Amino acid sequence: MALSDGGFTEEQEALVVKSWSVMKKDAANLGLNFFLKIFEIAPSATQLFSFLRDSEVPLEKNPKLKPHAMSVFVMTCEAAAQLRKAGKITVRETTLKKLGATHRKYGVADGHFEVTRFALLETIKEAVPEMWSPEMKNAWGVAYDQLVAAIKEEMKPLPAA
Amino acid sequence: MALSDGGFTEEQEALVVKSWSVMKKDAANLGLNFFLKIFEIAPSATQLFSFLRDSEVPLEKNPKLKPHAMSVFVMTCEAAAQLRKAGKITVRETTLKKLGATHRKYGVADGHFEVTRFALLETIKEAVPEMWSPEMKNAWGVAYDQLVAAIKEEMKPLPAA
Repeated sequence: MALSDGGFTEEQEALVVKSWSVMKKDAANLGLNFFLKIFEIAPSATQLFSFLRDSEVPLEKNPKLKPHAMSVFVMTCEAAAQLRKAGKITVRETTLKKLGATHRKYGVADGHFEVTRFALLETIKEAVPEMWSPEMKNAWGVAYDQLVAAIKEEMKPLPAA
Repeated sequence: MALSDGGFTEEQEALVVKSWSVMKKDAANLGLNFFLKIFEIAPSATQLFSFLRDSEVPLEKNPKLKPHAMSVFVMTCEAAAQLRKAGKITVRETTLKKLGATHRKYGVADGHFEVTRFALLETIKEAVPEMWSPEMKNAWGVAYDQLVAAIKEEMKPLPAA
C-alpha cells in the first residue's frame, strides 16, 4: 500500500476532510471560482472545452461551465478526502479510464495540470482563509498529485498489439 | 501609429509610470518574486533555464536567477513605461530580434506567455496594493500584450529562401 496511499498521512487526511466539509456546501460557486482562476491564468485553456469555444457569452455566465466546474471540483475534493481510507484514487460518476481517455483526446498537457494545481490551491485558500496553512496546502497538493498521476496512468497509449 | 501604440492611452501610461516609479527601487526583489510566481504556477518552466535545470539549490537561492529575473522585470516594466512616448515596444540591453531568437530556441509557447502575464500582474498587485485597481491591471496587461506581440513577431521562422 506504500505506493497507492502515496504517504498520505492521517494528519493530511484530517486537513483535507476538515476543509472539504466546509467547502462542500458552496461547491457550485467554488467550482466556478476554480475554473475562472484556471482561465484567468491560461485563457487559451478555454479552447479545450467545446461549450466555451463556440460560446459568445462571458465565461461566468456560460450555462454549461458552472455545472461542469462543480462536478470536477467535487470529484477532485472527494477523491482527496477518501484517498487514505480507499488506499487509492477513487472517482465518482465516472472511471479513471474514462478520465484518462478524455484528457488524452483533448490534448491535455503537463502544463495544464500544473496551472490547475495552482488554481485549485488558490481556490481552497480563498474559500477557507481562516484554516489555511502551509500544511493544508501541502496536503491538498499531495492529494491532487495522486489524482493527476492516476489520470496520467490512464492517458498512456495502449501498447501496440 | 494606431497599431504601434496599440491604443495605449495617456491614462494607461500614467498608471504604469506611477506604479513603476515606486517598484523601481525594489526591482531586484520584485523581479525574483515575479519569477518565483511563474515557477509556483508552472514548475516545469524551470526546465527552460539551463542554470535552473542543472542546479541543486532551492530556486530562491540560485545565484543566477535573481539577476536574470531582475533584468527581465526591468526590461518589461521599462518597455511598458516608454510604450506611449516611443510609439512602440523598445527594449534595453538587447534587441527584439535577439529576444525573438532566444524564445524560439528554447521553445517558449503561448502557455508560457500566459502564465508569465498572470505572474507579472500578481507581482505588481502585491508590490503596490495601495494603488492597484482594475484600470491599472488593464494598463499593465495591455503593455505586456504588446511586448509579447513584438517578441512573437520576431519568433516567426524566416520564410524559406
